Amino acid sequence: MRDAPGTGTAADSGERAADSGERATGTLSDEDVRALDAHWRAANYLAAGQIYLLDNPLLREPLTPEHIKPRLLGHWGTSPGLNLVYTHLNRVIVERDLDAMCIWGPGHGGPAVVAGSWLEGSYSEIYPDVAQDEPGMARLFKQFSFPGGVPSHVAPETPGSIHEGGELGYSLAHAYGAAFDNPDLVVACVVGDGEAETGPLATSWHSNKFVDPAHDGAVLPILHLNGYKIANPTVLARLPEEELDALLRGYGHDPVYVTGDDPEAVHRALADAMDRSLDRIAAVQRAARDGSATAPPARQPWPMIVLRTPKGWTGPREVDGKPVEGTWRAHQVPLAATRENPEHLRQLDRWLRSYRPEELFDERGAPREQVLRWVPKGPRRLGANPHANGGQLTRSLPLPPLTEYAVPVERPGTELREPTKVLGKLLERIMADTAESRNFRLVGPDETASNRLQAVYEASGKNWQDKLLDTDEDLDRHGRVLEILSEHTCQGWLEGYLLTGRHGLFSCYEAFVHIVDSMVNQHIKWLKVTGDLNWRRPIPSLNYLLSSHVWRQDHNGFSHQDPGFVDHVLNKYPPAVRVYLPPDTNTLLSVTDHALRSRDYVNVIVAGKQPTFDWLDMDQAIAHCARGAGVWDWAGTERGSASPDVVLACAGDVPTQEVLAAAALLREHLPDLAVRVVNVVDIARLLPSGEHPHGMTDAEYDALFTADRPVIFAYHGYPWLIHRLAYRRTGHAHLHVRGYKEQGTTTTPFDMVVMNDLDRFRLVMDVIDRVPGLAVRATALRQEMQDARQRHHDYIRQRGTDMPEVADWKWPYE
Amino acid sequence: MRDAPGTGTAADSGERAADSGERATGTLSDEDVRALDAHWRAANYLAAGQIYLLDNPLLREPLTPEHIKPRLLGHWGTSPGLNLVYTHLNRVIVERDLDAMCIWGPGHGGPAVVAGSWLEGSYSEIYPDVAQDEPGMARLFKQFSFPGGVPSHVAPETPGSIHEGGELGYSLAHAYGAAFDNPDLVVACVVGDGEAETGPLATSWHSNKFVDPAHDGAVLPILHLNGYKIANPTVLARLPEEELDALLRGYGHDPVYVTGDDPEAVHRALADAMDRSLDRIAAVQRAARDGSATAPPARQPWPMIVLRTPKGWTGPREVDGKPVEGTWRAHQVPLAATRENPEHLRQLDRWLRSYRPEELFDERGAPREQVLRWVPKGPRRLGANPHANGGQLTRSLPLPPLTEYAVPVERPGTELREPTKVLGKLLERIMADTAESRNFRLVGPDETASNRLQAVYEASGKNWQDKLLDTDEDLDRHGRVLEILSEHTCQGWLEGYLLTGRHGLFSCYEAFVHIVDSMVNQHIKWLKVTGDLNWRRPIPSLNYLLSSHVWRQDHNGFSHQDPGFVDHVLNKYPPAVRVYLPPDTNTLLSVTDHALRSRDYVNVIVAGKQPTFDWLDMDQAIAHCARGAGVWDWAGTERGSASPDVVLACAGDVPTQEVLAAAALLREHLPDLAVRVVNVVDIARLLPSGEHPHGMTDAEYDALFTADRPVIFAYHGYPWLIHRLAYRRTGHAHLHVRGYKEQGTTTTPFDMVVMNDLDRFRLVMDVIDRVPGLAVRATALRQEMQDARQRHHDYIRQRGTDMPEVADWKWPYE
Repeated sequence: MRDAPGTGTAADSGERAADSGERATGTLSDEDVRALDAHWRAANYLAAGQIYLLDNPLLREPLTPEHIKPRLLGHWGTSPGLNLVYTHLNRVIVERDLDAMCIWGPGHGGPAVVAGSWLEGSYSEIYPDVAQDEPGMARLFKQFSFPGGVPSHVAPETPGSIHEGGELGYSLAHAYGAAFDNPDLVVACVVGDGEAETGPLATSWHSNKFVDPAHDGAVLPILHLNGYKIANPTVLARLPEEELDALLRGYGHDPVYVTGDDPEAVHRALADAMDRSLDRIAAVQRAARDGSATAPPARQPWPMIVLRTPKGWTGPREVDGKPVEGTWRAHQVPLAATRENPEHLRQLDRWLRSYRPEELFDERGAPREQVLRWVPKGPRRLGANPHANGGQLTRSLPLPPLTEYAVPVERPGTELREPTKVLGKLLERIMADTAESRNFRLVGPDETASNRLQAVYEASGKNWQDKLLDTDEDLDRHGRVLEILSEHTCQGWLEGYLLTGRHGLFSCYEAFVHIVDSMVNQHIKWLKVTGDLNWRRPIPSLNYLLSSHVWRQDHNGFSHQDPGFVDHVLNKYPPAVRVYLPPDTNTLLSVTDHALRSRDYVNVIVAGKQPTFDWLDMDQAIAHCARGAGVWDWAGTERGSASPDVVLACAGDVPTQEVLAAAALLREHLPDLAVRVVNVVDIARLLPSGEHPHGMTDAEYDALFTADRPVIFAYHGYPWLIHRLAYRRTGHAHLHVRGYKEQGTTTTPFDMVVMNDLDRFRLVMDVIDRVPGLAVRATALRQEMQDARQRHHDYIRQRGTDMPEVADWKWPYE
Repeated sequence: MRDAPGTGTAADSGERAADSGERATGTLSDEDVRALDAHWRAANYLAAGQIYLLDNPLLREPLTPEHIKPRLLGHWGTSPGLNLVYTHLNRVIVERDLDAMCIWGPGHGGPAVVAGSWLEGSYSEIYPDVAQDEPGMARLFKQFSFPGGVPSHVAPETPGSIHEGGELGYSLAHAYGAAFDNPDLVVACVVGDGEAETGPLATSWHSNKFVDPAHDGAVLPILHLNGYKIANPTVLARLPEEELDALLRGYGHDPVYVTGDDPEAVHRALADAMDRSLDRIAAVQRAARDGSATAPPARQPWPMIVLRTPKGWTGPREVDGKPVEGTWRAHQVPLAATRENPEHLRQLDRWLRSYRPEELFDERGAPREQVLRWVPKGPRRLGANPHANGGQLTRSLPLPPLTEYAVPVERPGTELREPTKVLGKLLERIMADTAESRNFRLVGPDETASNRLQAVYEASGKNWQDKLLDTDEDLDRHGRVLEILSEHTCQGWLEGYLLTGRHGLFSCYEAFVHIVDSMVNQHIKWLKVTGDLNWRRPIPSLNYLLSSHVWRQDHNGFSHQDPGFVDHVLNKYPPAVRVYLPPDTNTLLSVTDHALRSRDYVNVIVAGKQPTFDWLDMDQAIAHCARGAGVWDWAGTERGSASPDVVLACAGDVPTQEVLAAAALLREHLPDLAVRVVNVVDIARLLPSGEHPHGMTDAEYDALFTADRPVIFAYHGYPWLIHRLAYRRTGHAHLHVRGYKEQGTTTTPFDMVVMNDLDRFRLVMDVIDRVPGLAVRATALRQEMQDARQRHHDYIRQRGTDMPEVADWKWPYE
């Protein structure tokens, strides 16, 4: 059919390709090949049509400039390869009645996957105006990369997708996330050779070390080496063959190579590769599941396919005298001047007609029978598999009554507990209660125990498929706790798990969760877009527990101190974002319970693991968390005043402690000062009601914070965040915020708050400075506070610990 | 010496170890082994001493609880391995007069590297109070993880380091960055097996495909498999041997294995492995440099060492009946209750005395001769190599006069240019002028051409060491443009390059630079800390060019739209952070020139690549950028009014265009309205002068923006950032900001601004709504603006392009 490719790779890899091809001959009949090729040509035609055509979708007339879109956008290069995979996945799904989905990693594969969905009918079921007929095809073409239409990459709008193709690097992690606890599911995952250069992708190959073949489904990676990213060759495509092979075997895979640019040979080889891979997957799973093994078998290499075909295959060979097919020039729109340049228009016409659309589509514009021969039916179609619209399959978590895990709090501020340790008991219960349903996972970068959640291991260990030693503890072949030192992989796994309708929690050091800033962006964008798609069902929320936070990284120092993830997340689509700063154990239980019940949010919970005062009993905690912010009457000294002299506000466990200690000092030294103490759990409450679903009205805000009294606000993170949230409030000019201002080091807990002016003594000084008249009245107290700070500083630098006065402080009951 | 390890790895890897050991016998004399072992024991003693001892540093008395620190912090587990590497690097440096530095990847290796530096004397030279005597040793011990002391990880305070050991994943990328263009330098890099699980590390193995053996130095990775991260085994340490070997060969390395827990055997094997590796490096470099090859030799596998020794080696075997050495329990402080538990204290005493300190340190407390036998002198010491204090070696870039690259601007707002394309010419010149000095690099994730900087290829191509095809363009064995589809690797390379005293620019899509949020955090933290260390010399700034920005990702859609990196960076240490939003070509040239001259900053430049109006000629641009913000008189209609009726402010290229178009509409329709147009280039100018070195005083701010007039501010990014910067200003209540509010999709450029209420028509409406009296006077105009928005919206949805009225708009000269 076509001769040697422009990429020059045929010679290097010919041997493997031939080898692969040889075995394939038995798999497909000639008729099969023709049918598969017809489907592939149809998909290629539709992909090219989406990029170029505004009208004349079936080429019933000769192409004219008016048929061409005014802005030519989109990416042809990756499309023929993705189409080929779609075509061949269809075949194995039908042949094996396979429950399969596919993650399409390469960036701008939109036209391909949309084409596949349209051909199988799932697209028109969801979008009836894009029917399987000529007007529907015209709409299909026009909407692509058109205002109000669909993006050039695989997106939430794309049926069958759980993976945005915009940013790169997360496909494999998403695929594994989808496969965990879905024992009958096969998740194919096309990894682009561009994407393969990213860090997150490079490490997510190791995900196969966390697949339990007894309880998890399988991932079938298909590394598509089309040779180029945007304007450069890719690293993997230019590796010597033996180096690439070593790399993939080193990743724990047994690769099958499919190389070529002769469609018939590639069809046969790819069909064979898929059959071999799926047979192998079935064998591994059988061995793990049939109960015949006396001990769990050692981890086996999983199959994968390396598909090496030209970039922009079947597109223009040359444009303006320069090679295009098989080079980086095929990345986007190979013929860029089709409206202006008659030669480009002629080339486009020839190119599109090379697919012989009249053989592929009938008079009405619907795909012909031969095209559809290997297309699956109903929910087996890649665009209709319910796993890819996971909310359809979501079952609510069995959550126990919180009272069973509540800690007793008779007098606030007298007993210390490690909040996350208590939460660990709740998670243990959830883990135990989902032992059968297996729809809950805890992920983290080896910080589960460090964050004090280790009780969970009582119910489910840490998943581990490799060698076990006598000294190991809590490792488990079937464990649902996933720990790998890659925040990217944790996030990607969890996203894939949630998007397929299950639940989870990501426990992470606060500072290092910034590693996934860009991933959470994309997830929130996904949630925003799916919110407008009524066919997408709500999915369980993405829940973060950020512990080991800025104030208690005193021993790890400055590099571990960063509270900015909250700022990052609060920049994003407000309806999808929730941030909680529970001040103690019971409030942590309450917000976590709420987060685990919610759908379609990103919930960020910031909570310490160090001993922390309990302030609220369970009933109070539930009420307080439901309000999101409230006055702690018992801590204030308003005593029925019409309005307080000053409001001490706090958000976060350490700021709450310092504010309460400041309130106690004021109570002692300035007993007639009317102090109100306000605690904020749900930080978005500070936003105006029009800006966030949880935002307070101005009346609510003023009732809590007053419109005209000084507010000293001790906040867990960067102080200006509070201003950014509250700048529209009437009382904003009276708002004075203390928080973390990048003053960090290795020191003691109290020194950290002193360094950042968040300590109790400084807060009392702030009150004296801001309440009219106090500066004169309380000069001596102010000096005393100043001296106390210095005394502590000196003590700390000399002894290395906090003074007992601070370390042993409790709320002063008389 | 010691028997089989607790890790159980000896049997698996015995063969390789023996193999390695056999060849080693020739390398070291018995005396050498004794001397190396003495150095290693001394370093181990000092590392353990740092974790535990407050006093009695030489154990002249029996240990008592008073000698023990009150808070036991730090990480023993990784220390003996790092010490071993330090010891053996010393030997090869001396033996070969090697110019070498080392990147210490494992997280908390602080005690080890500090110990190595103290032993060689470099520590005491920098910190004279920590002298090489008993009081100095006492200070060395006390300061570790102590308030006002030094962190538990390798940090800016650590001599010889350019790599913070807190966050993980960047060591290899830093090492390669240091090696580029340093042909005589060998950069050893210890990669921890925990760190190796991170994404950034996993992909940075591919850095070796970008090493030009003719012009670059070499990196010698030392993968330290001690088996555990915090509380889990590591993935790499538990791989079957052949899988690990395949992986490393797949990464392009030829690994040498050193395995064991018998110190003598390991000393011999490691010495041999280092010799073989360095011989191999020398051979590869010789082949590339001696001129004998007719064509550049194909990329060769580079050597690396796999060092498999027990975690916490030589520490307590068991504590409280549980195994510690060789398990995760050795990660932090193996004997945690030394002050309270007499058995722990006894164990610690035995452990510390097992190093026989009296043999290692003399009466004064200085290291004895045998310990120092293989310690290098002067700048060859790892703690004193000038490359690791790169500012010492920095030569300023040869920057041409900007006038040579300036574009002529006779009338503002009439000609369109692609700003980054012009910048590309300036970069070409810099690249050409550094052809000899080779101290400038351009890095990017395959977006150099996409961001229109391709002129630079005329002076230096894209570095590429693998196979070349006839169709390739601009690939270059010796190129100084680095393109890999990993923002992490780009960032890590550039950081390593800058930290060793050279210059560079990172060009990146604006949205995806969030991928390195966490890395830039750590770099800014590094700059903050080094700012307080007078022995650290200033290094060239880290310069970002963020192009393909939020407003002109209309074709790529929502996933590519995110302007939040500016918010992220502005949360960090203000003296180290600069953000520029040049509105046109000449201002882009000016700020880039400034950035490339600066030291110790992170400069973020956001600039479009699409055709953009030129507003300022070069002289005006330089003056405007120097001020950072200023009134554009020619655009306003104040005409000598005492004060304007309204201020239209803008920051960013697209907002500037919309503000100018709004100003033109106001001039036409409300000619008597006194409008002031203010453009802000340097966004930190908005901060109070006490909060940022570039912040304006209130008087300056009021002079520019007024204290009481409405300010309609069109900002490039999230609008609330402007509020967060300006909330303390007198006129803040009158400030109304428009910007990006997460309304994005695939559409036209103008539709993007309409969707986010940043368009000219909306800005005119804002003026009408906010200037007292206008709402009544200009009702018809307001309606007209509203209609115009709808008209554009409809046109765009139907035709897919912007209306000519907008697309062809220019500043209206009469």
